[in-house]
Amino acid sequence: MFQLDSQLKKDTFFVKDLKLCQVLLMNNALYPWFILVPKKADLIEIIDLSKEDQILLMEEISLVSKILKHHLKPKKLNVANLGNMVPQLHIHIIARFENDATFPKPVWANSENKPYQEQELEKIIEWAKKVGNVT
Amino acid sequence: MFQLDSQLKKDTFFVKDLKLCQVLLMNNALYPWFILVPKKADLIEIIDLSKEDQILLMEEISLVSKILKHHLKPKKLNVANLGNMVPQLHIHIIARFENDATFPKPVWANSENKPYQEQELEKIIEWAKKVGNVT
Repeated sequence: MFQLDSQLKKDTFFVKDLKLCQVLLMNNALYPWFILVPKKADLIEIIDLSKEDQILLMEEISLVSKILKHHLKPKKLNVANLGNMVPQLHIHIIARFENDATFPKPVWANSENKPYQEQELEKIIEWAKKVGNVT
Repeated sequence: MFQLDSQLKKDTFFVKDLKLCQVLLMNNALYPWFILVPKKADLIEIIDLSKEDQILLMEEISLVSKILKHHLKPKKLNVANLGNMVPQLHIHIIARFENDATFPKPVWANSENKPYQEQELEKIIEWAKKVGNVT
């Protein structure tokens, strides 16, 4: 049975369910930083997914990427499955800007963490719930 | 017309062509580090690919991931499209080990670079050419 890893639970806010994945928002106001977690047990690598679910994962990566790109117009999207610290399969999708806290470095292991203020959080979650509606 | 970015050309060795992507080996002997570059012009983001090519990209990510996982048994694969430095769309696929130079940190912006010795290079390229043959 799928259960969200405790570290991911601690670090993120729930946004919405897509067909394969939960969409989560990383609690770091320095970046628009989303995480997709396929809702199946015992997944570590992308290749642990069936071929059909790999295609669905790509579709859902595209849905999140599109809303980030079209609404925020970032310099670059960073899309990554690392999992060196938290093995449960999860994919980062981060909108990067030339003036963000660490550009052009990757955010992992290079960035500070700035938790969201409540009002800011409500706004971004409300906006992010549109993922999958706008393609 | 597709043309490989000059920085990617400088940093890598050509391994083989798959249907959508060139498979390249990063010239850094600290990690088994491959790069997929879709052979189409003017691509920056994964979502710049057609839906069909996104599926093909996922298939080719899986091919490289499988050969790395089955032959090297890494602790984790790191699969990422960053592109903050080199915008041409390219996907890193890196086999990570608990005793490698930077684990659990990501390799980008955290790692030194150790060019391959000739003999070592021949061996890994020969081995890597099997990608797509073994699924």
